[in-house]
Amino acid sequence: MSIYSERIAKVQKKIMENGLEADVVSDLKSIEYLIDRKVTHMGERLMALAIPKEGKAQLFVNKLFPIEEGEDFDVVYHDDTDIATKDLAAYLPSGTIGIDGFLYAQFLIQLLEQRSYIKAVNGSYIVNQIRMIKDETERDLMRKASLLNDEVISKVPSMLREGMTELELAELLIAEYKKIGSPWEPLVGFSAGAAEPHHINGDTKLKPGDLVLVDAGQETNGYFSDMTRTFFYKGITEEQRKVYELVKEANRRGREAVRPGVRFCDIDAAARDYIASEGYGEYFTHRLGHNIGMQLHEEPSVAGNNEMVVEEGMTFSIEPGIYLSGKFGVRIEDLVLVTKDGCETLNYYPRDIQIIE
Amino acid sequence: MSIYSERIAKVQKKIMENGLEADVVSDLKSIEYLIDRKVTHMGERLMALAIPKEGKAQLFVNKLFPIEEGEDFDVVYHDDTDIATKDLAAYLPSGTIGIDGFLYAQFLIQLLEQRSYIKAVNGSYIVNQIRMIKDETERDLMRKASLLNDEVISKVPSMLREGMTELELAELLIAEYKKIGSPWEPLVGFSAGAAEPHHINGDTKLKPGDLVLVDAGQETNGYFSDMTRTFFYKGITEEQRKVYELVKEANRRGREAVRPGVRFCDIDAAARDYIASEGYGEYFTHRLGHNIGMQLHEEPSVAGNNEMVVEEGMTFSIEPGIYLSGKFGVRIEDLVLVTKDGCETLNYYPRDIQIIE
Repeated sequence: MSIYSERIAKVQKKIMENGLEADVVSDLKSIEYLIDRKVTHMGERLMALAIPKEGKAQLFVNKLFPIEEGEDFDVVYHDDTDIATKDLAAYLPSGTIGIDGFLYAQFLIQLLEQRSYIKAVNGSYIVNQIRMIKDETERDLMRKASLLNDEVISKVPSMLREGMTELELAELLIAEYKKIGSPWEPLVGFSAGAAEPHHINGDTKLKPGDLVLVDAGQETNGYFSDMTRTFFYKGITEEQRKVYELVKEANRRGREAVRPGVRFCDIDAAARDYIASEGYGEYFTHRLGHNIGMQLHEEPSVAGNNEMVVEEGMTFSIEPGIYLSGKFGVRIEDLVLVTKDGCETLNYYPRDIQIIE
Repeated sequence: MSIYSERIAKVQKKIMENGLEADVVSDLKSIEYLIDRKVTHMGERLMALAIPKEGKAQLFVNKLFPIEEGEDFDVVYHDDTDIATKDLAAYLPSGTIGIDGFLYAQFLIQLLEQRSYIKAVNGSYIVNQIRMIKDETERDLMRKASLLNDEVISKVPSMLREGMTELELAELLIAEYKKIGSPWEPLVGFSAGAAEPHHINGDTKLKPGDLVLVDAGQETNGYFSDMTRTFFYKGITEEQRKVYELVKEANRRGREAVRPGVRFCDIDAAARDYIASEGYGEYFTHRLGHNIGMQLHEEPSVAGNNEMVVEEGMTFSIEPGIYLSGKFGVRIEDLVLVTKDGCETLNYYPRDIQIIE
C-alpha cells in the first residue's frame, strides 16, 4: 500500500467516525498530500477531490489542467463553459458533506443550489487532523528546513548597514533563501515598523538605536520553516531590554508547556499569562502560534480559544510578541516538534539579546 | 460626493434592483475599489465589507489589520480568538444576502450555522458589474498599461538567443516589466511548451525552428495589461504558418465582433466558429477571453456560455489559440476597450508572422 493510499484510507476512516458521507478537498496542498501528483495553481478555477466514505475518490478538475488518473482516484473533467460543480453535485451522496474551508464560496453556493438537501459542514479538519501529525519522513524534512533557516538568520547581524532600508535587508535575505529553497516574503521591521505584527516592508532607513525584527523562512522539499529574531542596532534602551526579556521568557514558557496531552489554549496561556502578569497583556495582540508543515500556516492555531489536545508529531510555532505602537515591537519565534514527553525545538539560533555594532 | 461614495451608492442601487438585503464583499480589489484605502493581503483571515441596501457599510476585519474608518463605512474588529463572522452574522438582516464568490467557504458555512434563515446567493456580480464598466480615468490607465506592455513585447525578438531556456527569457521579461510596474509571472513556451495553454516555464532550450509563445503583462497604477504574441525562431513550417494565420484571423474576427449590444457568446463564436470551420475547433480548448482591469482575470468570461450583453467601457482580452499537443501552439491576444460603436484595441504591436533570425 502506497503512502498515498494509506493517507486516503485514513481520510475515509475519519469521514466515517465523524458521520459524514463524503469530504470535498480543494486545498491544493491537501490534494498533493493525498495523491501522488504535483498540482499547479488553479486561479479562479475548480479542482476538488471528492472522497466518499467508501470506494474510489474522484478528482473534479478543469480540463485546462490535465492530470493523470491514479490507483486511488478517477479524474472527471469540466471546461469553462460548464457549471463547474455540475458533476461534483451529481456525484455527492445526500447527507452531511465535509467541504474544504478554502473552497471558494461561489462553488459551495452553486453546489447547494443544485443539491439543497446536502448539509455542508467545514470539512477541512478531516485532512488537516491527519496532516498535522507528521510521520518520520516529514519530521526530518521539518528539521532540515529549520536548520537551513537558522543558517540564514545567523547572517543577519553581518548584513546590517546604517542607511539600508527594510526592503534592502529583505532582498538580501531573499537572495540567501533562494539558495536553499523557495522563500516567502520575509517581514523586516525597523523600530516602529516592528511594532506592527503584519508590517509591510518599506523604505525606512536603518539608524543607530534601531531595533530590527526579522520574521522569515523558506520552503525546502515541500516543507516550511518560519522563525523570528529581534536584534538591536548600535544600542538598546532600558525599556527595550525589559520588553525583550519578557518576550524571551514567554517564548521559553510556551515551549516548556508543550507535550502530548496539553491543550493548545494551555500553551497559549503559559506564554500569555506571564506577559499579562508583567503588565503587557494588551500589547500581545495575536495568537501564540500556528501549526506548520506543507504550508506556512496550517490548522490548528496555538490560541486561547483552541481546546484541542496536542499530539506527538505535531509541528507548530511559538511566537509571543509585545508591540508598542509607534515605538517598537519584539517577537521571538521558534518551531517545535512534539515528542513523546515534551518537544524538540527546531531552531537553534540563540535567543539572547544581541546588540550589533 | 467622492468617487468612492458614488461607487457605494451604485452598489446599493444594484442591491435594491436585485432584491437583496445586503451584499458581503471580501475580494480585496473590490474593497479597494469601494473604499479609499489600500488593503493588504489577509492570508486566511476575514475581511468583509457588508453593504446594506440602505445605510452605512460596515467593514469586518481582524484587528491585526487596522484600518481607518471612513465617511462611508464603520470598522468592526474581531481577533483570532473570536468566531470570525460573529459580528457579521449579527449585523446581517434576514433574507437574501449576496456573498462574495471568493469568500472562503469556511466563513459562509460559519455564517449559515449562526443564521440559518439567511439565503446566500453569489453576490460577486453586484460589484463586478459596476467594476466592469471602466470610467474615463480607468480607461486611460488601461490604455497606458497596454502601451507599456507593447513596449516590452517589442523587445522579445532581440532577446532571443539560441540555447536560452524558457525560464531565462521569462527572467529577462520580468526585469523589463519591473521597470514599469508589477509583472505577473509571464508564460514562455517553446514549441511543445507553447502547446500547453497553462504551461509552466521550464529548462527547455531554444533551438532553430522553435516557435516562441510569450503571454505577459504587468500591473501599472493598479491596472493590468495582458497580451500574447507568438514568434518563430529561425524558420517556420507550412503547418505552423497555416495555424498562425488561422489564429490571427480568429483574433481579428473576435475583435471585429465587439460592440455594445452583442453578447459575449457571440464574440466567442465569431472567433471559434471560424477556427472550427477550418477544422481546428477541437484544438481551441479555452474561452476566447476574460475581462480585465484591477485584476488580471475579472468577470465575466468571453465564453460560449455567457449570454451577457457587452457595454461601452468594458475591457477584455481576445485570445484565440490552437494547441497541437506535443508539437506547438499559437495564441494571439489583445486587449480591447468597448467604445460607442465598436472597440479600441489597446495593443498596437503587430500581429504579422515574424521569423527572428
